[in-house]
Amino acid sequence: MVQTEAENIEVFDLNSYLKERKILVEKALDESLPMGKPEKVYESMRYSLLAGGKRLRPILCLASAELTGGTIEMAMPTACALEMIHTMSLIHDDLPAMDNDDYRRGKLTNHKVYGEDIAILAGDGLLAYSFEFVAVNTKNVDPLAVIEVLALLGQTVGAAGLVGGQVLDLESEGKPDLDAETLSFIHHHKTGALLKTSVLSGAILAGTSTKIKAKLAKYAENIGLAFQIVDDILDITATQEELGKTAGKDLKAQKATYPSLWGIDESKRQAQELVREAIVELADFGQKAEPLRAIAHFITNRKY
Amino acid sequence: MVQTEAENIEVFDLNSYLKERKILVEKALDESLPMGKPEKVYESMRYSLLAGGKRLRPILCLASAELTGGTIEMAMPTACALEMIHTMSLIHDDLPAMDNDDYRRGKLTNHKVYGEDIAILAGDGLLAYSFEFVAVNTKNVDPLAVIEVLALLGQTVGAAGLVGGQVLDLESEGKPDLDAETLSFIHHHKTGALLKTSVLSGAILAGTSTKIKAKLAKYAENIGLAFQIVDDILDITATQEELGKTAGKDLKAQKATYPSLWGIDESKRQAQELVREAIVELADFGQKAEPLRAIAHFITNRKY
Repeated sequence: MVQTEAENIEVFDLNSYLKERKILVEKALDESLPMGKPEKVYESMRYSLLAGGKRLRPILCLASAELTGGTIEMAMPTACALEMIHTMSLIHDDLPAMDNDDYRRGKLTNHKVYGEDIAILAGDGLLAYSFEFVAVNTKNVDPLAVIEVLALLGQTVGAAGLVGGQVLDLESEGKPDLDAETLSFIHHHKTGALLKTSVLSGAILAGTSTKIKAKLAKYAENIGLAFQIVDDILDITATQEELGKTAGKDLKAQKATYPSLWGIDESKRQAQELVREAIVELADFGQKAEPLRAIAHFITNRKY
Repeated sequence: MVQTEAENIEVFDLNSYLKERKILVEKALDESLPMGKPEKVYESMRYSLLAGGKRLRPILCLASAELTGGTIEMAMPTACALEMIHTMSLIHDDLPAMDNDDYRRGKLTNHKVYGEDIAILAGDGLLAYSFEFVAVNTKNVDPLAVIEVLALLGQTVGAAGLVGGQVLDLESEGKPDLDAETLSFIHHHKTGALLKTSVLSGAILAGTSTKIKAKLAKYAENIGLAFQIVDDILDITATQEELGKTAGKDLKAQKATYPSLWGIDESKRQAQELVREAIVELADFGQKAEPLRAIAHFITNRKY
């Protein structure tokens, strides 16, 4: 099994795929949000939205749509919306009242450049625009599927998703002895929910069956948790330059992390196991699922 | 003309109507957002959402839906979403990084009770939930109309609406000599956009023709501007107790207002003229439009 996947990865050139998809997504993001008035808030929104990053969420959405018989065109507005939402959550999380971070994606954080007031409003603007953008620009998709995606996006950002995760994350500062269950609850909301929605939304737009959606949901939950474990490891092992954001934050904030619970080696093993289980869910799809398999491997092997 | 309207107002009991509708809306709002985990953020969202207020936006949405052949049931999820959006904009506008206000609707502002971090997140949560709530709960409406309403809500909150208006409003502090055009641009975005969307969304859900929507849009633009002029007047003439929020804010922040541009008497005259013009747009609707006519009068006559 592992052997076969290793061979597949050699056949499927993930680096080229990610590079090509990133270019495609960044072009769409750039076009999605032209300048407007008042200029300052549009500049601020564009500053963070176009600041680079892996673009993993849009890429997952497009890959999932293609895997389930949809097209890039159907899914691109949602792919952009996912990145708008992700960006908004980063802008607000970095604020002085929250994580108080100065660097993100190798650049000054939004509020360091535009001030706290504009940063809050730019986040609000991106969040509102993400829904508008999907509602206005999604073409050749069953309207009920568009509504389902909009509902899912809302749920993923709100108190039952990102917002709830961030609240618990803030509460967990100075509590380095949280148990694995609480930690998993936080990350399920804060990181997992949006990654899962990225995968599911592509499939919903393509009109996928409930059975296939369940498999993709399982895949996404596993890679979401693996992603967070690797994030925790990188916070310890990587430099600020590699991460493009402040390193060693968790330790400084006395946060419980997977490495603090399990140690680094066991955390790596758990992440790999989650990726293996994620890939099992894709067994029925054959070659078509190579991008999602490769992305799963990428998550544990990434250096940033 | 004025005579007839005065008679109509006597026939149509606006006070009872507003009271009854407010109860209906508050019940729906209370049910719309049950407690969840993490409790702190749900508490914070509910604290501001259920803090009272005129509930003018939901009431306008329901009235417009009924006027154009729809039902309260069709429009209630959107009516609640409009109040969630309005509440979110108040929570964020009151933050220390923005207007730094301690009181709202007669109670401590959200961040004074829950802290800045939670207040930011509660606003984000309400915004996200407003879209989710419309998408999940709107029944017996053409899905394309639901998507149109969601697009309109997004546009109304974003940089082209509330967010853009707030940015310009912040920039206008310390500039008491703004011209009427800039002032109108600010208020069109900050207050007018959401009032217009309140009226239009009800009509969209009911499946109204473009021609009727244009009349309702004109009505809403006029009452939106009248509302803001009266707000500016009340900021000078009313007490904090009457307003439930800090009075005299505009003068303190050296903001240009309609009374500072035109004086109080001329501002009152302009507001009344706008209401008169708004009511002209309702001429074709006959008796059915009494609620919207009465609300227009209420806007200039209100004391809070």
